Amino acid sequence: MTSTATTLKGQILEKPLLDAMLRRRMFYTPSFEIYGGVAGLYDYGPPGCALQANIVDLWRKHFVLEEDMLEVDCTVLTPHEVLKTSGHVDKFADWMCKDPKNGEILRADHFVESVLEARLNGDKEARGQKVEEKDDAKKKKKKAKTDAIKLEDAVVKEYEQVLARIDNYDGPQLGELIKKYDLKNPATDVLPSDPVSFNLMFQTSIGPSSNLPGYLRPETAQGQFLNFAKLLDFNQGQMPFASASIGKSYRNEISPRAGLLRVREFLMAEIEHFVDPKGGKKHSRFHEVNKVQLVLLDRETQLAGKTATRKVSIGQAVKEGLVDNETLGYFLARIHLFLEKIGVDLSKMRFRQHMENEMAHYACDCWDAELLTTSGWVECVGCADRSAYDLTVHAKKTGASMVVRERLDEPLVVQEWQVDIEKKKFGPRFKKDAKAVETALMATSQEQREALSKQLSEAGKFSLKVPDVSSGNVDVTNDLVKIEFQKRVENTREFTPNVIEPSFGIGRILYALIEHNFWTRASEGGDLARGVLSFPPTISPTKVLIVPLSSNAQFDPSVMKLSQQLRRFGISSKVDDSSASIGKRYSRNDELGTPLGITIDFQTLQDGTITLRDRDSTNQVRADQGKILEAVKSLVDGSKDWDKVASELPKFEGQELEMAGR
Amino acid sequence: MTSTATTLKGQILEKPLLDAMLRRRMFYTPSFEIYGGVAGLYDYGPPGCALQANIVDLWRKHFVLEEDMLEVDCTVLTPHEVLKTSGHVDKFADWMCKDPKNGEILRADHFVESVLEARLNGDKEARGQKVEEKDDAKKKKKKAKTDAIKLEDAVVKEYEQVLARIDNYDGPQLGELIKKYDLKNPATDVLPSDPVSFNLMFQTSIGPSSNLPGYLRPETAQGQFLNFAKLLDFNQGQMPFASASIGKSYRNEISPRAGLLRVREFLMAEIEHFVDPKGGKKHSRFHEVNKVQLVLLDRETQLAGKTATRKVSIGQAVKEGLVDNETLGYFLARIHLFLEKIGVDLSKMRFRQHMENEMAHYACDCWDAELLTTSGWVECVGCADRSAYDLTVHAKKTGASMVVRERLDEPLVVQEWQVDIEKKKFGPRFKKDAKAVETALMATSQEQREALSKQLSEAGKFSLKVPDVSSGNVDVTNDLVKIEFQKRVENTREFTPNVIEPSFGIGRILYALIEHNFWTRASEGGDLARGVLSFPPTISPTKVLIVPLSSNAQFDPSVMKLSQQLRRFGISSKVDDSSASIGKRYSRNDELGTPLGITIDFQTLQDGTITLRDRDSTNQVRADQGKILEAVKSLVDGSKDWDKVASELPKFEGQELEMAGR
Repeated sequence: MTSTATTLKGQILEKPLLDAMLRRRMFYTPSFEIYGGVAGLYDYGPPGCALQANIVDLWRKHFVLEEDMLEVDCTVLTPHEVLKTSGHVDKFADWMCKDPKNGEILRADHFVESVLEARLNGDKEARGQKVEEKDDAKKKKKKAKTDAIKLEDAVVKEYEQVLARIDNYDGPQLGELIKKYDLKNPATDVLPSDPVSFNLMFQTSIGPSSNLPGYLRPETAQGQFLNFAKLLDFNQGQMPFASASIGKSYRNEISPRAGLLRVREFLMAEIEHFVDPKGGKKHSRFHEVNKVQLVLLDRETQLAGKTATRKVSIGQAVKEGLVDNETLGYFLARIHLFLEKIGVDLSKMRFRQHMENEMAHYACDCWDAELLTTSGWVECVGCADRSAYDLTVHAKKTGASMVVRERLDEPLVVQEWQVDIEKKKFGPRFKKDAKAVETALMATSQEQREALSKQLSEAGKFSLKVPDVSSGNVDVTNDLVKIEFQKRVENTREFTPNVIEPSFGIGRILYALIEHNFWTRASEGGDLARGVLSFPPTISPTKVLIVPLSSNAQFDPSVMKLSQQLRRFGISSKVDDSSASIGKRYSRNDELGTPLGITIDFQTLQDGTITLRDRDSTNQVRADQGKILEAVKSLVDGSKDWDKVASELPKFEGQELEMAGR
Repeated sequence: MTSTATTLKGQILEKPLLDAMLRRRMFYTPSFEIYGGVAGLYDYGPPGCALQANIVDLWRKHFVLEEDMLEVDCTVLTPHEVLKTSGHVDKFADWMCKDPKNGEILRADHFVESVLEARLNGDKEARGQKVEEKDDAKKKKKKAKTDAIKLEDAVVKEYEQVLARIDNYDGPQLGELIKKYDLKNPATDVLPSDPVSFNLMFQTSIGPSSNLPGYLRPETAQGQFLNFAKLLDFNQGQMPFASASIGKSYRNEISPRAGLLRVREFLMAEIEHFVDPKGGKKHSRFHEVNKVQLVLLDRETQLAGKTATRKVSIGQAVKEGLVDNETLGYFLARIHLFLEKIGVDLSKMRFRQHMENEMAHYACDCWDAELLTTSGWVECVGCADRSAYDLTVHAKKTGASMVVRERLDEPLVVQEWQVDIEKKKFGPRFKKDAKAVETALMATSQEQREALSKQLSEAGKFSLKVPDVSSGNVDVTNDLVKIEFQKRVENTREFTPNVIEPSFGIGRILYALIEHNFWTRASEGGDLARGVLSFPPTISPTKVLIVPLSSNAQFDPSVMKLSQQLRRFGISSKVDDSSASIGKRYSRNDELGTPLGITIDFQTLQDGTITLRDRDSTNQVRADQGKILEAVKSLVDGSKDWDKVASELPKFEGQELEMAGR
């Protein structure tokens, strides 16, 4: 596992430098900071908010519009009963330990991990090896003291195996590890308590009389499932189809400490693709993606304590059974294409399969798209096969129909033992027990019916076990029922769809994207502190910066005209007419990820020409407004790149350098 | 007050008919319906979700982009302390009564209103007058029995005055009204309890140890205020500026019963415009809107128990002082223009000024944009002047700076009594009391200082009252302090901005918009049940319906080609290739508000022509694909209307009628 993150230009990524820049440019900021802040809560400032909106917009186009998904917007508030049925009340939990000495609350898996890693680092130090600083975002890092103590080789191997499987242990197992390896809390030097389960949902009460407990949803999925029958109806009964939802979800993390990567309130974008489980979950558009190459890390590799990945086409992966079916494979490829489109560095992306114990209670298979960051590999998109779990439990609990009725092309002829009750005599005979006897009778299996039929014809009656009747048994005679082997024709087939669920954590994607597109001018011999965010134009918070040479009012008409024209093209722009030098103003916008800059200067007033600057190369061209606007349009919609534009328009030199010195 | 709502074509709006249609087309649906539902919670189905997204998109363009506002996205979870400071913990509440007999919880104002209205209706009945069915969305309607009992004329007048001022009473006053008029709960025939305050925020607990109480935000505003200093910095110190936010907010309504109009979870879009209070809150773009005509219902009119409105230009209204200042007036006009743009019926819109007692605790003036619906006049946008309230309380509580520092063009010379402390002697003299004495000294007023200075020069000392010192008084001698009348030059001015806040309830707007654009074909002699939603194309959930004549595979290539072309133009379309007749398929899409329909038939396969159908007139034209696509583009972007398109392209007749009969 590579854990040293680099910038877009291969520089070592200095996290404090990036953090300072993101703070300076208000991409995001701790919520309620003037009140001391609350762990795991962040506000997005203007550039972060625009970046998020652009990612969401592209997501909607790539998935919802492209595949005609049914987008819904369901409530966050969810009554207890729904999440009890879905299993979240009982199972959506982390294991937490308490330090008996200082009362500190620790997340058990993260605690075990941090202490073992500290020991391994101590061992490396003692052996004189380089210690890699790794700060995995998935884990709370209680910084353990690193004592340079050499371990036996076998112990090192054992620790490493435990760490590779860390997501695979449940609470009692983590408790055993703590005792077995004598894992004391470095802060107090005592063993923490046995892990107990802590539910991660925020609880509240709906209505004035406190009698309706509820939660903030932990995922948008449940709202989609509960609306399944209505959505199927809206879709005019056609299968397969997908619903989609974009909205906030909540997890009351035990101890969030990794910036945007582990937060308590977050934006999710989720798809629930409903598919007939019969026929191997084929997908009609799989051929469009089957050559897409994915980097996969499968379950077996991880169970062997390894992290080696394999690059393979999704077509091959499905064929080999590495990925279970076409529909799951189709979405893995679509996720890959989406992440590529928004600007993720493909060399820092992989799909990791979940291990058995790691999977959510509802999933039968799951692959995560993970992105490499300074905090290690981070799960950004989950793609789970939830089978028929959710629809089944909700239907069972509420009695609502959650099935698809499919008209059969060929009617199905079923031959089986059927029970016919002579209602007129049956009721009067059994009186208040009639219902219970009927239920017991209808619950009999084919084998039992065959036997009962035989008894009826031979003895004219049989004895039936009826749990709800005081005597426990009743005699049923052949004037009351007939049990015969009969043909029955079925014209429809009924089934509960399976669900493939791609689930996107927008905040994590946004953060990883920032790291993947960050670099500093130091790589060009420039200032280390001058950051650049080389986002693709489609997701850049702002597309064009307009820079009048100074705040002199004579530039105002040109600035206003240009702004209006860009707005008419639907291209977002900002004007910076502050008194800072042009160089400084461009630097600011490099850090905001604005791909293009236009300068209006005295020459503009004379001949109408303006300059266009490329963020990444800082090269400029100069031409009249019409040509520059055409160039901007083609750069923003992706039909041309900068090299092409630069080859077509006259190069311009000097202004930025000249001005930067002012 | 007109309270009978009509459709777009002047028909009486049959609410049950509309409700059935909205349900059938899944605009929205009660959340968790298969679990029995939860009052005040609704999910948006695909057309409702798209309609909402389009309204939000237009809002963002009309306000955020047009005026370069700083959009932020802050968390919903908010710690107790923040909302304690903002006043919401103490004051964001409704008055509720309990019925002592059946335990029913009643919202006090709605209860008083419903019983008085029932009596007035009974009076009208007794007088043989027509009783208008009114179901005001703002009020919970505990359907009171209407007994036909005639009241005295004076009593009728008194009741009517109470009702006109119903929003103006506080809890104790409502309690008095209940006793004075002997308002018994019709359900039990007993008087409800005295009103008690019920806080409307949903409470929860943040983190694992339950020691951080928090709430779901009741408005997005607080997050914007807390980020004020960072936003000002992001805006490079320039004033005025506005922040904006779109997100969910929550109110734990006592008894929500009016569909989308009174819900517990709702989408808000809020703007906080920060403005210098000095100089009358002018707005630099006021001249752009000053001729916009608004329908106003002011405070005085309402206090006189009347509801007469006045149509006046916003320029005139500000000039007269009816609307307090230009900035408030600018936003009222911009709100008007926005609502007009999305398709609100201007004859069903008014701006109503809040009465003193009705205003939120933070507001010093407030106007609501109200829209007329079957539930009466509904507040859809609030536009409040929050003065410096919020920034001041948060700054005071946290010590954070929430001010703007403005460089003065002319330095200001201030001459005043200043206290200089001789620290070296002062400390040793008062020892542990030094801090308290200093605080008391610095807190003295100009008048006090003048007097103390006199005592110092005359007696060489003075006696100072120091509350925190045990003796209560200390002697201060002239070796410890100097108090002199001195000049001081100020180069900067410091001020706390005032806030003008336009606040949009997106769900209410969406619902009112549906009513304003609804009508049925009955108005043309057609079927009463065939509804139409005549949304403007910009906000229609889908712009184009593509209808192949049948599901015959030979139409597929044409359908796919057309879909792709529309997608390339950024125009959303849906294909309906179900087996229903063309007429039925168009009817379905009239109900979904899709403005345009394109039919692909056998002639298309021969000569490439397609037909284009207008939802509102059901008229059709036929031309080749290129011409039709051009027409679609201009209809969707608003550059042409249907009459224009119909005059340019050959009319087509017959298909729909012909097919509808099938």
